[in-house]
Amino acid sequence: MEAHAPYRYEQLADLIIGMIDKGALSPGMRVPSVRAVSEQHQLSIATALQAYRMLEDRGVLVSRPQSGFYVSNARHGTFALPSTSRPRTKASTVSISGAVAALLEHASNMSLVPLGCAVPDVGLLQSKRLDLMLARVARQHGARHNVYSPPRGEAALRREIARRSIRTGHALSPDDILITSGCTEALTLALGAVARPGDTIAVESPTYFGLLHTLEVLGLKALELATDLVRGVDVAALARLLDKEPIAACVLSSGFSNPLGYVMTESDKRSLLALLSKHAIPLIEDDVYGDIHFGRERPKPFIALDRGENKIIYCSSFSKSLAPGYRIGWIAPGAYAQRVMERKLAFSLSSPVLPQLAIAEFLEGNAYEVHLRRIRRVLEENLTRMVRAIEASFPAETKVSRPAGGFMLWLELPKHFDSRALFDEALEHGICFAPGNVFSASRRYGNCLRLSAGHTWDDHIEAGVRRLGRLACAQLNR
Amino acid sequence: MEAHAPYRYEQLADLIIGMIDKGALSPGMRVPSVRAVSEQHQLSIATALQAYRMLEDRGVLVSRPQSGFYVSNARHGTFALPSTSRPRTKASTVSISGAVAALLEHASNMSLVPLGCAVPDVGLLQSKRLDLMLARVARQHGARHNVYSPPRGEAALRREIARRSIRTGHALSPDDILITSGCTEALTLALGAVARPGDTIAVESPTYFGLLHTLEVLGLKALELATDLVRGVDVAALARLLDKEPIAACVLSSGFSNPLGYVMTESDKRSLLALLSKHAIPLIEDDVYGDIHFGRERPKPFIALDRGENKIIYCSSFSKSLAPGYRIGWIAPGAYAQRVMERKLAFSLSSPVLPQLAIAEFLEGNAYEVHLRRIRRVLEENLTRMVRAIEASFPAETKVSRPAGGFMLWLELPKHFDSRALFDEALEHGICFAPGNVFSASRRYGNCLRLSAGHTWDDHIEAGVRRLGRLACAQLNR
Repeated sequence: MEAHAPYRYEQLADLIIGMIDKGALSPGMRVPSVRAVSEQHQLSIATALQAYRMLEDRGVLVSRPQSGFYVSNARHGTFALPSTSRPRTKASTVSISGAVAALLEHASNMSLVPLGCAVPDVGLLQSKRLDLMLARVARQHGARHNVYSPPRGEAALRREIARRSIRTGHALSPDDILITSGCTEALTLALGAVARPGDTIAVESPTYFGLLHTLEVLGLKALELATDLVRGVDVAALARLLDKEPIAACVLSSGFSNPLGYVMTESDKRSLLALLSKHAIPLIEDDVYGDIHFGRERPKPFIALDRGENKIIYCSSFSKSLAPGYRIGWIAPGAYAQRVMERKLAFSLSSPVLPQLAIAEFLEGNAYEVHLRRIRRVLEENLTRMVRAIEASFPAETKVSRPAGGFMLWLELPKHFDSRALFDEALEHGICFAPGNVFSASRRYGNCLRLSAGHTWDDHIEAGVRRLGRLACAQLNR
Repeated sequence: MEAHAPYRYEQLADLIIGMIDKGALSPGMRVPSVRAVSEQHQLSIATALQAYRMLEDRGVLVSRPQSGFYVSNARHGTFALPSTSRPRTKASTVSISGAVAALLEHASNMSLVPLGCAVPDVGLLQSKRLDLMLARVARQHGARHNVYSPPRGEAALRREIARRSIRTGHALSPDDILITSGCTEALTLALGAVARPGDTIAVESPTYFGLLHTLEVLGLKALELATDLVRGVDVAALARLLDKEPIAACVLSSGFSNPLGYVMTESDKRSLLALLSKHAIPLIEDDVYGDIHFGRERPKPFIALDRGENKIIYCSSFSKSLAPGYRIGWIAPGAYAQRVMERKLAFSLSSPVLPQLAIAEFLEGNAYEVHLRRIRRVLEENLTRMVRAIEASFPAETKVSRPAGGFMLWLELPKHFDSRALFDEALEHGICFAPGNVFSASRRYGNCLRLSAGHTWDDHIEAGVRRLGRLACAQLNR
């Protein structure tokens, strides 16, 4: 099956985004009614509504009951979206570890304005309730549980994760799941199960630098895929690549990718699955940001759209939404269950028992849902404020992403901009962020940067973003 | 430097062990005085005393104040020591994962008599105090610590481990240490740092099956070294091998190796270090059993005997002596610090925060020392009882190890004995143990087995060992 041409609702959605980008529709403005737009473009009402709903889920539009759809004035104002990436079409050996280690060190430096680290801060997570559960299981059941956890993980936690998996649209059984040390171990186990040193792995471009670091350590090459801020991975471009390059596996975000924040449409995801199935290429998907959606619906991961034709390894964790300090993630390895289990035994044997039991207990009731509703609202608000601060201070040519979930912003400045120089300068001013070139194996995106809006918004953060904007202006004016 | 000939005190010690083995000296019997033996063998008093002290540390002799040295009647009676291993002198590809996974599954089956699993049971560890500390840090400081731990690990824990390292004879600084997910992750990080797929790693034979499993997953070959129950790795044999085989690294136990339980003498360790230094081969040492010594002195690890000429990676954990459920180990990677850190970032990013802080607090006071004194006594007593039960029920030809630390026994039966068949039969009788051939990459030791004495001794365990002995007798008589 070929990668499909855009559906009509997607064409309509693109048109509306284009109008917003060009200023023909501005924030707060009412967009044409569903009926009007369906007549104008000779679409069915259902198709037009599908386009509007999708834009609503992405945070581009907001609907007001009895009134219609409006351009969201929340997250985006005057700045355009960054352009679709055009990485080289050859696999690259990865050599990024030094940069990653240095970045992580700065990102954990509490004295800097924290725009670098991709975890919500402790004030925002408010994990008190979870910690009390840990205290209780330790006090009451600690002695009984001072044993190696089964390598697969505690049954109680696997049950709760399985129970929640229904919300993602793909019901897992507890036995499908293996508990890991965060999503990091999940991805490393997955890559080790599907690839051997020297193999090539296709990844989004730009992509999470931790993934590139892991590829480097495992001796794998990265093939960077052209990726659009709205539609995600360019399926047609991937189809052309697969005819030329042997690829051992593809690693993609299930939604709200880090750093771009896009969500692929379900139809694009299906096209991509069909393409991978045709070439018999396994897909590793990373769903760590899926629970932080601002729209009504959680994006469906690839695994929920698979018709049994793909080999998919699903990876996720609680690090972005609940408990980075607990280091609890999981993997549903599907056809690779045995190889993943063998690697888990060799890498860490099993995960600590009590943190698993505490999270299982936390998930049992409604606490995680309540928690998610709160942090989604706060993180969306944080992004809005950060975009405003960016628009008020960064150069007018700056382009900025408009994620409908997660808490990262991707900024693109003019081609000759040097975000590494900005990084060094920002550190001197006590500000940390992630420079663009750590998100690419071929060290592209030197004119881009990622800002994290995971910290409780305050004057300190606001002032940091604005100062960063002024530093960027100063560099451009030099 | 060549592997040295045995020192005179070692010759004397071997002579006394031989006399005990042959029954010339029996349990409870007073051995000739230091003065008498020094005159008889024309040795200095100091040399004779050194031999006696070494035998005391190994649990062969006991000293009684004002009275002299006696043959210990604790752990060994009538059965001889298993013979020195004579593995093949070629590297083997490892293919053991299936067997290991199956064994681990049985070993965690609570309904079986637990002679299979190499961790002390929860009743013996009595980790209540540690769990209360975990509860307290979770309650009081949980929210503040819901962040990624530094990849190196919590400073408080690294400080405590460094402080305790003085007892091993080699003072580490907190910055020398990286916290891992048990010793398993430490060994995996170490192997990844020194070797590439296809390389050969020299290991004791028999050795811990988990290590063999890790070699397999990392695509490394195993070269098994001849190993003696008393003296450990045969340094002269290793010297001959190194002239023929290229070896990427050597992995050895610091003391009370699993499964044999031997401790190499300091002079043998020094010879081995000199040999590895001459060939520029890094040493990875595993010291997880070192704290469980029955003699007065903790055996010095290799790293404490190095004169700065060797590249040594030191690995240990709290899994055997305090908290298997917490999954906290550590690695002192020395010259490989950067490569180990890079791999830690890729494999698990960092370890959970709160379990680290709880163990740090536990180590701060005297609690760990008090705890160790208690479990050393209990585990020594367990071994004594287990040896008695073996001698009362196993075939008379059975040979059994006499470890002076740890809690494992290694049994050797006549050549044609099939411990895998015994394993299957024992499972039907509700008894689990570890069959010998999982301790060898070339699947030797089919006539051997390992029994763990880590569980609180009771009639159930006693009856299990005796039934196992009767099953072994029945097999030999068939």
